[in-house]
Amino acid sequence: MGERRLKHWGWGYEDQAPSREQLREAAAGINERLGFGGEPEEAVPLDQVKLREPRLKVPSAFGDLFTDEHYERVVHALGKAYRDVVRGLRGEFPNPPDLVAYPRDESEIEVVLEWAEAEGAAVIPFGGGTSVVGGVEARFSDRPVVSLDLKRLDRVLEVDAESLAARIQAGATGPRLEEQLKEHELTLRHFPQSFEYSTLGGWIATRAGGHFATLYTHIDDLVESVRAITPRGTWASRRLPGSGAGPSPDRALVGSEGILGVIAESWVRVRPRPRFKSSCGVEFDDFLAAAGAVREISQSGLHPANCRLLDALEARTTGAGTGEKHLLVLGFESPDLPVEDPMRLALEIARDHGGDPRTSGPTGRKPKNTIGLRPVDRGVEAWRGAFLLAPYLRDTFVACGVLSETFETAITWDRFEEFHASVIEAVRGKVAEICGAPVEGAGAPRVSCRFTHVYPDGPAPYFTVLAPALRGGEVEQWDEIKAAAAEAVIEGGGTITHHHAVGREHRRWYHTERPEPFALALRAAKKALDPAGVLNPGVLIDP
Amino acid sequence: MGERRLKHWGWGYEDQAPSREQLREAAAGINERLGFGGEPEEAVPLDQVKLREPRLKVPSAFGDLFTDEHYERVVHALGKAYRDVVRGLRGEFPNPPDLVAYPRDESEIEVVLEWAEAEGAAVIPFGGGTSVVGGVEARFSDRPVVSLDLKRLDRVLEVDAESLAARIQAGATGPRLEEQLKEHELTLRHFPQSFEYSTLGGWIATRAGGHFATLYTHIDDLVESVRAITPRGTWASRRLPGSGAGPSPDRALVGSEGILGVIAESWVRVRPRPRFKSSCGVEFDDFLAAAGAVREISQSGLHPANCRLLDALEARTTGAGTGEKHLLVLGFESPDLPVEDPMRLALEIARDHGGDPRTSGPTGRKPKNTIGLRPVDRGVEAWRGAFLLAPYLRDTFVACGVLSETFETAITWDRFEEFHASVIEAVRGKVAEICGAPVEGAGAPRVSCRFTHVYPDGPAPYFTVLAPALRGGEVEQWDEIKAAAAEAVIEGGGTITHHHAVGREHRRWYHTERPEPFALALRAAKKALDPAGVLNPGVLIDP
Repeated sequence: MGERRLKHWGWGYEDQAPSREQLREAAAGINERLGFGGEPEEAVPLDQVKLREPRLKVPSAFGDLFTDEHYERVVHALGKAYRDVVRGLRGEFPNPPDLVAYPRDESEIEVVLEWAEAEGAAVIPFGGGTSVVGGVEARFSDRPVVSLDLKRLDRVLEVDAESLAARIQAGATGPRLEEQLKEHELTLRHFPQSFEYSTLGGWIATRAGGHFATLYTHIDDLVESVRAITPRGTWASRRLPGSGAGPSPDRALVGSEGILGVIAESWVRVRPRPRFKSSCGVEFDDFLAAAGAVREISQSGLHPANCRLLDALEARTTGAGTGEKHLLVLGFESPDLPVEDPMRLALEIARDHGGDPRTSGPTGRKPKNTIGLRPVDRGVEAWRGAFLLAPYLRDTFVACGVLSETFETAITWDRFEEFHASVIEAVRGKVAEICGAPVEGAGAPRVSCRFTHVYPDGPAPYFTVLAPALRGGEVEQWDEIKAAAAEAVIEGGGTITHHHAVGREHRRWYHTERPEPFALALRAAKKALDPAGVLNPGVLIDP
Repeated sequence: MGERRLKHWGWGYEDQAPSREQLREAAAGINERLGFGGEPEEAVPLDQVKLREPRLKVPSAFGDLFTDEHYERVVHALGKAYRDVVRGLRGEFPNPPDLVAYPRDESEIEVVLEWAEAEGAAVIPFGGGTSVVGGVEARFSDRPVVSLDLKRLDRVLEVDAESLAARIQAGATGPRLEEQLKEHELTLRHFPQSFEYSTLGGWIATRAGGHFATLYTHIDDLVESVRAITPRGTWASRRLPGSGAGPSPDRALVGSEGILGVIAESWVRVRPRPRFKSSCGVEFDDFLAAAGAVREISQSGLHPANCRLLDALEARTTGAGTGEKHLLVLGFESPDLPVEDPMRLALEIARDHGGDPRTSGPTGRKPKNTIGLRPVDRGVEAWRGAFLLAPYLRDTFVACGVLSETFETAITWDRFEEFHASVIEAVRGKVAEICGAPVEGAGAPRVSCRFTHVYPDGPAPYFTVLAPALRGGEVEQWDEIKAAAAEAVIEGGGTITHHHAVGREHRRWYHTERPEPFALALRAAKKALDPAGVLNPGVLIDP
């Protein structure tokens, strides 16, 4: 389509791929820093990727709605989990869609669904393709597959500045919708890590977690109404600030991961851009003391925009700390109200728990309140940079033989200490066992933890694993670690996912977590709306 | 059971019923104040109420689980809408349950469901019986009915002070659960108008709206997990502060109005009792200017606990004002943080919109910040008193021939002005037409409006109608007014209910509002969980 193209594997655009020379330098740096990782492996180029022949022919009746182009089939074949990046690097695309469809409007979505149903094909709705749970990969072989890419539906259709809401098409990526909202001096401020590529529809389908560490941050809370195309008609809810009319139809679609309908557009709650901002890093010697500070802050009614706790290892890995101290990244922002007072109160709480605000950090600068400026604390800045760069860096990790993957959950405060200890122990043990690496010291695999979101009743811990990869056996290696992690999470009472969704990857643990009568209800709902099972088979429920 | 008994009709306990003399005095006062209403009619006494014979025999196998006692059948026969109070007063109980069951635990709920299914009977879950939408009335004649009263399940089973959560049985009324939480210096602070009688399970089943005018106030947001008994097993979700694992199972039960399962208990989010409180009334000459102030406050991030706008007529009716000014009741509260600053900022916004804070009101006292004390502003106090007394007063209204009923909705800000005007006009016109009363002046029916909750994207307007009743034809009279109101609400883009639920009364308009594919999904879910259609037939979906 003449635009900047996504890399056919891994993260980012084609023009962002590092050169051979850069990769070699990175490999040396990674090994020096982590104590593992080796020579960079080169990715199989796009033209050498072998795909199975398409099992569907591009229908001639619908113009350029469908394509079977090689690049398109490759780039829609996998998500962005570690296992996907590994396989992409190696040119392994076992389940490519047979066709890719790019609808321009709702009627074309209907065309795709009807045509697919008539052909006995499945349809996988595709937003940014950033699923890390196999949500967009057709892991079934009983029928052909159309990947339904919503990227042409990328407009902000209407802005209601009085109610602070906007009607936005499902295929708009984070930057696309923010650039259109900016014209109205408004913002959705929903910044998942995948922000650059993922889409509003994808966020709604997967219950994405957003920018804010507290208060309304899930897309669940930002949705005012939704329109979705189902095989049995259009699911369109009313724009309402609130309603008590039966179970919420929006909440039934939010998290439905493409099995009930294709989200076409949504009215979402937006807000004025923040004018007041304050940001500060707080160091702790003791992780549980830091967690205690976070608990108290989350229950204080202060509602920080940022309240992300990084354990010492995570702080070191992301360059936000030296590895001795745990780092709490605190931030407040508001379009209307000064934020000095809540920051002061939050810092008081942090100090009560042994926290040391970085009054002079690596920069020698004091944390200060900034109006319309970026935060100045370097640890905080480093963390933000690392947060957005992480998915790019991972491609390099993978090429250099470094296992790099994450998992995330949520748990109530009363169980957190034991939960955290048991999850870390289970994963560290399994990583050491599988990687044959030392548990501690130089070259030891890293299992670190941060909080991505916090609630009055508990945190959402997010774990990162960095370890020497078993080259050629990466997928199986990770699968074993993942199983140990997921079992510890489920055993400890957590959720199998706080904001990564279920997809195909989390199915078996999700089945344990989900109330069985709800599974019956969901299966029945699916059957009623999609009797032919066209929509994303194998996600959430049995295909 | 030897306890204080509920009146067999209307609101409150038997010992709260006014004497004949009191009623006569009240009638005179009402007529003087409203310009309509006449001699009080006496209620048909309990022992003269005629019920159809029970179509079920109390089974002997289950001890005192079931009863067919006359009083019990009467008191479970109706809800608390105007039409219910009218019929109760006249001794009209056309659809009494055949039996009433009082389970003591989950296994007894299962017994009731199984026994009823085997007998071909329906089961109506019953909390406080305060439904104003026909939610507990068996308006069907094709099968016998068991009213399943949860009142014996009224305990706080567990308190997790660290996560600020409590595990509470579904049959606990507001006062019962608050008295148990108080021992832990905690509170749910969920105060619907029916607080004294309604129950946690009822709140969850009907998506009740709570104490707070902004932020987390719906029971939807306070539920951490739920256990419900369905005909196909126990629906038990995990205690989680947040999750992204598929559509929320809790949100599917919240608002299910007893058609999917019987809610047995729930972990809910509680909080420390507020130590800082501030409350103030602000007067406005112009209702839309006041609404503008509310809009700006709701979008400011100040999160007032109270932000209830009463139009001048509503303020006069409730004794909170003289009828010339519109009154905004503003309140802030916090367990931890002083509330002077947010109150000051909110009052600034109110002033910018022409609001006049009652620095010297009827009491001559200034609004002041109170710590652990009740608010001092008399308009505010009067409003609070009237809020809680309203349902009691309505029995007297009904006895004296005064039509007294409410309806409520929610709408986005951009549509509010036109919506409000058209709803008020439609209802005033219909009331005048039916009651043959003047539209304005002394003796005119009253159609007034207040906001019960406000969101950044819109208010939840609540309308009250007071008019001369057509004695003997009250139900039909109200039905016509209600239809005009509901049509104006639906036509104007509102929701048929913001927190009163759908029940049987709102069905026909709910069908317009609800996305059709969601109706298909809900019906299928119901069929999967309750194939015999035992649970609350005729609520939300076709029986």
